[in-house]
Amino acid sequence: MKIHFLSKAGLVAISLVTLTACVNKESLSNQPVATNLPAPSHGIAYPEGWQNWAAIGVSQRTDNHSLRLIVGNPIAIEAARKGQTNPWPDGAILGKVVWKQGPHETWPAAQAPKEFVHAEFMFKDSKKFAQTHGWGWARWVGAEQKPFQKGPQVCISCHTPVKDRDWVFTNPATFPQN
Amino acid sequence: MKIHFLSKAGLVAISLVTLTACVNKESLSNQPVATNLPAPSHGIAYPEGWQNWAAIGVSQRTDNHSLRLIVGNPIAIEAARKGQTNPWPDGAILGKVVWKQGPHETWPAAQAPKEFVHAEFMFKDSKKFAQTHGWGWARWVGAEQKPFQKGPQVCISCHTPVKDRDWVFTNPATFPQN
Repeated sequence: MKIHFLSKAGLVAISLVTLTACVNKESLSNQPVATNLPAPSHGIAYPEGWQNWAAIGVSQRTDNHSLRLIVGNPIAIEAARKGQTNPWPDGAILGKVVWKQGPHETWPAAQAPKEFVHAEFMFKDSKKFAQTHGWGWARWVGAEQKPFQKGPQVCISCHTPVKDRDWVFTNPATFPQN
Repeated sequence: MKIHFLSKAGLVAISLVTLTACVNKESLSNQPVATNLPAPSHGIAYPEGWQNWAAIGVSQRTDNHSLRLIVGNPIAIEAARKGQTNPWPDGAILGKVVWKQGPHETWPAAQAPKEFVHAEFMFKDSKKFAQTHGWGWARWVGAEQKPFQKGPQVCISCHTPVKDRDWVFTNPATFPQN
């Protein structure tokens, strides 16, 4: 009886080790353990791991000489690729990453990213953020990622021209599907 | 005894189910099953899943009016974030995704991606590609991703000005680390 009990315990241990290894591996690949995340912006938690999210598009602004990368979490990427973006689905997070632009050192006709400016995000949750048009609005400024706290109305007033596009400027770029 | 035997079998089953669920989830997230990949370019297999790779940077070319997204496989991203890019490590794959640019419909001072042009890739393997400066060179053209077959010398001649930068134009953009 004792031997059987130990065998069961051993199998339970193996099962737990397997489960733990699985969870840890996923943590490493998708959600790296952060030790010092920036503080929330407008009460919204920092979207950990956005640096490794896939791209929805790119853009350049001639009015303020910046280059932009638009990224999305997996829910946003799936919606973008399928063209299901008006409205964007609850759970989607869009990120716009902004750098000052300047000439590339070895190809002067090219503009390349220089100083990092900020990363700003829209978090879609039609219930939680019903008071701000279904989106949570947040921004983290500079390489130190200082949380922006001047209020979502700053973001919303700039985005008002695209209120009929679910408040989003970006048209997802065409990516070949295969 | 029979009850104990069944319990052990049950625990083995749970362990296998856990392991299987783990493997399946990883397969779904990292290696989507493709049904119809484009043919190789210069003998190099299509880099399946590049559409979901993280970004190394963005750029704009004023000489041919295009916007570019530079992506990397996980080995390339790790090297880019750590600044270990001269040389890039074996196994790194860099992708440049190119669109024609045009004004954004609701923000005319912004340039946005229009027609998809091509996606071109550099595959670092200092032994396998020793004859072409340590890189495999490939390109897939248009939304149909037709393989480019005019030879790697076309790519290499354009990249010769950056031979001292391990043949790579892109300076990885600054991404906040946390």
